[in-house]
Amino acid sequence: VIVSTRQDGPDAQASPALTVDQVRAAAGRLRGVAHRTPVLTSRTLDRMCGGTVLLKAEPLQRSGSFKFRGACNRLSQLSAAEREHGVVAYSSGNHGGAVALAAALLGVGADIVVPANGPAAKLAAIEGYGARLHRYDPARQQREEVAAGLAAQRSLTVIRPFDDYQIMAGQGTVGLELAEQAGELGPGPDRGLDLVLVPVGGGGLAAGVSTAVTALQPGVQVIGVEPAGADDTAQSFRAGRRVALERVETSADGLRASQPGELTFAINARLLADVVTVTEEQIAAAMLFCFARLKLVVEPSGAVPLAAVLSGVVPVAGRRAGVVLSGGNVDPETFAAMVG
Amino acid sequence: VIVSTRQDGPDAQASPALTVDQVRAAAGRLRGVAHRTPVLTSRTLDRMCGGTVLLKAEPLQRSGSFKFRGACNRLSQLSAAEREHGVVAYSSGNHGGAVALAAALLGVGADIVVPANGPAAKLAAIEGYGARLHRYDPARQQREEVAAGLAAQRSLTVIRPFDDYQIMAGQGTVGLELAEQAGELGPGPDRGLDLVLVPVGGGGLAAGVSTAVTALQPGVQVIGVEPAGADDTAQSFRAGRRVALERVETSADGLRASQPGELTFAINARLLADVVTVTEEQIAAAMLFCFARLKLVVEPSGAVPLAAVLSGVVPVAGRRAGVVLSGGNVDPETFAAMVG
Repeated sequence: VIVSTRQDGPDAQASPALTVDQVRAAAGRLRGVAHRTPVLTSRTLDRMCGGTVLLKAEPLQRSGSFKFRGACNRLSQLSAAEREHGVVAYSSGNHGGAVALAAALLGVGADIVVPANGPAAKLAAIEGYGARLHRYDPARQQREEVAAGLAAQRSLTVIRPFDDYQIMAGQGTVGLELAEQAGELGPGPDRGLDLVLVPVGGGGLAAGVSTAVTALQPGVQVIGVEPAGADDTAQSFRAGRRVALERVETSADGLRASQPGELTFAINARLLADVVTVTEEQIAAAMLFCFARLKLVVEPSGAVPLAAVLSGVVPVAGRRAGVVLSGGNVDPETFAAMVG
Repeated sequence: VIVSTRQDGPDAQASPALTVDQVRAAAGRLRGVAHRTPVLTSRTLDRMCGGTVLLKAEPLQRSGSFKFRGACNRLSQLSAAEREHGVVAYSSGNHGGAVALAAALLGVGADIVVPANGPAAKLAAIEGYGARLHRYDPARQQREEVAAGLAAQRSLTVIRPFDDYQIMAGQGTVGLELAEQAGELGPGPDRGLDLVLVPVGGGGLAAGVSTAVTALQPGVQVIGVEPAGADDTAQSFRAGRRVALERVETSADGLRASQPGELTFAINARLLADVVTVTEEQIAAAMLFCFARLKLVVEPSGAVPLAAVLSGVVPVAGRRAGVVLSGGNVDPETFAAMVG
């Protein structure tokens, strides 16, 4: 029996939700399967912001984003019966590709529910991993319902994109690695990170990373960053309850959730130091910086935290900041139009 | 005294030219200064070509290309007097940026001779590293002469782009790392690499890499790849002597040398298994592949060896191939025009 030494109130004790041990267990499952992505640095960036910035390069993760970590952790824990029946996920983006690849590697069948008008390149990538596509009409149908229907009909396991502790634990391995790599990159493991910036969509990455890094480095500030046009978590954070937006509008297609997850928000409301927003222009400038200086392709959603640093929305002068570049799945035409 | 166990003829014995020990010494000098760049893999690429491809990601090197390795190795061996007077290099591209950055890190003054009509972004990057720019008119002046004039006037040391053993030794560390990383990535260090593909401009990278990997893994084939529009080394390799081209035409601005180096060709003629060429369309397709699947920005020159794999010019079916992606310095407008 492990006696908790946490300083949280009785409520947190009663619902431990997600623990760093779950994130550590996920890291064990991902070893040799997911990449330990490199941390990049830029002397130019450090000079521009007056601090030290460590950029966690998840575009170099398998399937092109951090989402592979959560999908892989979740799918590797399916029972034999669940494996045999297969899984279903709803997403035209990174979660769909991640589930498709993780399923292929584990020899599990995958059905991915995608909008009929989804981007052809992303749908082709999902099919390329060997998953079956199920197109739905977003004007008439709810994707959750389409997935639930398929699941009921064929005994499939629904793999939710963020509101699932095993998904969050997988995403949290980004934070585990970042904290470790911050020590390896000097100036000594005792120094660590002063703050960590993560993008927030449904909140799974933020919940996993904040759980991991605040446990490893008490005192670190984890800051969530959203596009101004999809600031549901920023509004919810200030209101102290989950706010649902009527509409979202941003190029960051991975962050278009209109409401925080129930499980993720309970964690993020407690562990995040703040949630801030950036504009579309700031996102495009961050993508261009990644292209020109880091030689890394970063999608709009993935550039959001760096946008907060470059724009000064989050000042990092004199501090050591970890920034999660969460993914790189953007097609060249969209990219050219944004940064050209 | 180390007794050579090489099987080469008396001529090679008489002029050892460049040895793997010089490359190892360079690696020691670069430790903690240059990045040990990651090796990327792609399941999609392996499936497409039927082999295993390990991609050495030099766009992630400091200054955005492998050129930093040679510059750093060369500059770190300057005498105290040479350091005090400073260095001069001629290049509007990767060598210029690499010398400028290496000089800045070592506290040495650097003058870089650049064409007056050179790309503004690259010239700005060189200045950003703290070097002085000297513009010349390529229609009227020879850049080597401009540099020699400055060197004579101010006792500067000329840092040649490739025909210099210390430059070659630095570039060779790419091969040293690739061979090591090939072992780390499995299926076991004894397996190693069957072939290694490198881009060839003046031939410094090819000479360094071939020296390193053929010493570490006897039997490995090192293949040089050139754009069809700048095939001076391919022609020279077949002729058995250095051929000079009347004109070169390629988007691969780092590979526009019209004649192989004297010192580099002596090594490459002996150690390369072959020199092949690729078309401009094949280069653009390889850049697009890097963007879409690897999330890596690769400049035209850097994509040339991968173009040979993707096009089938060099078959890798059933083999384990190391491919050097040598740099990522391409501006977004040029990139968009090439792959859009």
